[in-house]
Amino acid sequence: MTSQPRTRVLTGITTTGTPHLGNYVGAIRPTVQASRNAHNDGFYFLADYHALIKCDEPARIQRSTLEIAASWIASGLDTEKVTFYRQSDIPEIPELTWLLTCVTGKGLLNRAHAYKASVDKNHEAGKDTDADVTAGLFMYPVLMGADILMFKAHKVPVGRDQIQHIEMARDMASSFNHLYGEHFVLPEAVIEESVALLPGLDGRKMSKSYDNTIALFAPAATMRKQIAAIVTDSKAPGEPKATEGSALFQIYQAFASAEETATLAQAYADGIGWGDAKQVLFERIDREVAPMREQYQSLINNPAQLDKILLAGAEKARQLATPFMRELRHAVGLRALASDATASEHKDSKVALPSFKQYREKDGQFYFKFVDAQAQVLLQSLAFSSPNEAGQTIARLQNEKGAALTELATVFEPMTPEKHRLVCENLDLL
Amino acid sequence: MTSQPRTRVLTGITTTGTPHLGNYVGAIRPTVQASRNAHNDGFYFLADYHALIKCDEPARIQRSTLEIAASWIASGLDTEKVTFYRQSDIPEIPELTWLLTCVTGKGLLNRAHAYKASVDKNHEAGKDTDADVTAGLFMYPVLMGADILMFKAHKVPVGRDQIQHIEMARDMASSFNHLYGEHFVLPEAVIEESVALLPGLDGRKMSKSYDNTIALFAPAATMRKQIAAIVTDSKAPGEPKATEGSALFQIYQAFASAEETATLAQAYADGIGWGDAKQVLFERIDREVAPMREQYQSLINNPAQLDKILLAGAEKARQLATPFMRELRHAVGLRALASDATASEHKDSKVALPSFKQYREKDGQFYFKFVDAQAQVLLQSLAFSSPNEAGQTIARLQNEKGAALTELATVFEPMTPEKHRLVCENLDLL
Repeated sequence: MTSQPRTRVLTGITTTGTPHLGNYVGAIRPTVQASRNAHNDGFYFLADYHALIKCDEPARIQRSTLEIAASWIASGLDTEKVTFYRQSDIPEIPELTWLLTCVTGKGLLNRAHAYKASVDKNHEAGKDTDADVTAGLFMYPVLMGADILMFKAHKVPVGRDQIQHIEMARDMASSFNHLYGEHFVLPEAVIEESVALLPGLDGRKMSKSYDNTIALFAPAATMRKQIAAIVTDSKAPGEPKATEGSALFQIYQAFASAEETATLAQAYADGIGWGDAKQVLFERIDREVAPMREQYQSLINNPAQLDKILLAGAEKARQLATPFMRELRHAVGLRALASDATASEHKDSKVALPSFKQYREKDGQFYFKFVDAQAQVLLQSLAFSSPNEAGQTIARLQNEKGAALTELATVFEPMTPEKHRLVCENLDLL
Repeated sequence: MTSQPRTRVLTGITTTGTPHLGNYVGAIRPTVQASRNAHNDGFYFLADYHALIKCDEPARIQRSTLEIAASWIASGLDTEKVTFYRQSDIPEIPELTWLLTCVTGKGLLNRAHAYKASVDKNHEAGKDTDADVTAGLFMYPVLMGADILMFKAHKVPVGRDQIQHIEMARDMASSFNHLYGEHFVLPEAVIEESVALLPGLDGRKMSKSYDNTIALFAPAATMRKQIAAIVTDSKAPGEPKATEGSALFQIYQAFASAEETATLAQAYADGIGWGDAKQVLFERIDREVAPMREQYQSLINNPAQLDKILLAGAEKARQLATPFMRELRHAVGLRALASDATASEHKDSKVALPSFKQYREKDGQFYFKFVDAQAQVLLQSLAFSSPNEAGQTIARLQNEKGAALTELATVFEPMTPEKHRLVCENLDLL
């Protein structure tokens, strides 16, 4: 029996709002379900450093953190089984952000969608390119890179608009690995195609920015009132109604079984009155939400308990972050002065082995050497335009040994048959 | 007897090189001298996070940190009296960097000289605007802002090329104070006009980048050899020589008394041979450097002791940084969920007082209100285009009370005579 390593899955939630039914159906519920998959090692964090980018209201950030933490736990996230923490409780995150800042090309950040959207908006309005753009918005992908790379996440579930950020995190990881050795895991985006987009009161996507939301854990009376405000057509009771394009129907569907949905579709055809339909919807949602609402209220009323849960999560997260940051600091040269660089860089390998040395030249191009255990250069690469290309070439050499060496001959400086033999021998040692 | 508060003076040294005589004459010696001024509270730090921007050689950063720390201490910096620390030992620095990132306009950073110089160079070379520019170079002024603002430095001695960075730090402080209340001290640049610029071996400014340096603490034999390489004209012994434009003479001057300098000038006129003149120079420098060289060597040979000294300095620095960061985190909303925002925000004032509330509107303009102890708005400002302007208006109201109110009438919304009276009364309470 072998135990398979679990896949680390990481999700951040920005702490600027109060969770609504759209968040629940689109993010909280599916994520909590996925967190129960025993193959996943789930990391979930409250992204309050990110919140500072768009929100300068301290009380709102504090309140939102409280509400979001309570919502996720009330919705079934098992904080014993997953790692649930507040970003700002991990001081290693801003430190890693700086390390990544130093290996990230500014050009990469210029191309970020969110930044470019702000620039386009400014140009349309006849304003300066960067009017009202903070450095926070510009640097947001680097902070996100630190969030992901710090915990060596394998998978990051994201919407289509976030794919670019994961690619950027991969770029940062590659650049860092290229300069300082293999430290980071390259994360993969998991695109959530099937995420239910819940319509809001007015039929548009439910979103805080449209002011068309139904709060997830408001008291039942409030939820009933909000549901009563869902926009419908003006068909009278008795008239058959179309399910197609009915926000009310779509919301119902997100909570109901196939059978229940079919029953409501029949009721639409039979001419159910809008008031009755809203009552059916309210009852169906409340059936799912009411038991969680109780726990939510009890958590909200006991913020000190939530603080404790979050701090315990942070402690768990820092059991990884603290030693990893120590490793990264050493890698870049932030070391105790008394530490012996060479000795400690190889502390894990009792016997010296041949190795690849990646570097970047003044010409901006990427190179690597393959050196034997005595640091004699056996193989010198020509220039690569990206660290990724260099890295892939190294990966092929490591996997395919001598075979790859022959196929890839054009990317190395010419070598004598004797050198070729030595390279093959040394590759076999890896 | 009253004790005057000391002026906090802060200086950072980037850890990428080995100190040479130019660093000693231009920076180390005058700074160590100034550190003995009892009115100054000196903060000196090894800027190793900054070093990462331009140096991706870990061993070089480690070695440079060792050499610079040893040089400053050997040159007389009293680490008991000042606060001498390594930047990367203060985890609050990168955290504050993020907080400042969120209040810094990207446009401000676009205008930084160092960044613009890179852009100009790229354009001249026909390259992309941001080719080879890292986010580290772009964000450097924010990290420097954090260095300065973290310790509420009053004065930052800088060369002319660094004035802009201090202005940027002031901008960041103002923006933050405007949004979140008065937390930061606005630093002032102290321009060092009279800093001796030492010529190097070839007569140009002594600088690592010209490869024309004389190492500060190399063994005497090495220093003698380097001095022998100073470029002179080809006048033979016996021929009178010009002191004007003689690098050798200028270097001598930086170490010698007026009397000694006059003696060498006379020797020049009398036709001293270049070999003899170099011997005179070597002896004069060695007289100053030899006793320090010994301590330098002993420190270099005992890096663990230096680690201890730096960690003790970091501990001293963090006695300020840690509680201040706690205050700043609270201000922006990164708070324990159980902390009562209102109560703790006013914990220092047992009796509520009238106060100014600064804020920024969606229009991007800056405003403030003056509210009484019960938070009733007494005075509403019109728009200011910068937080500085708003802040200066508030400062005048606080200092000049009712008199300023009349003079500044045009920058407020109109008020009734009754309101005017209330504003004056409340201003008098401050």
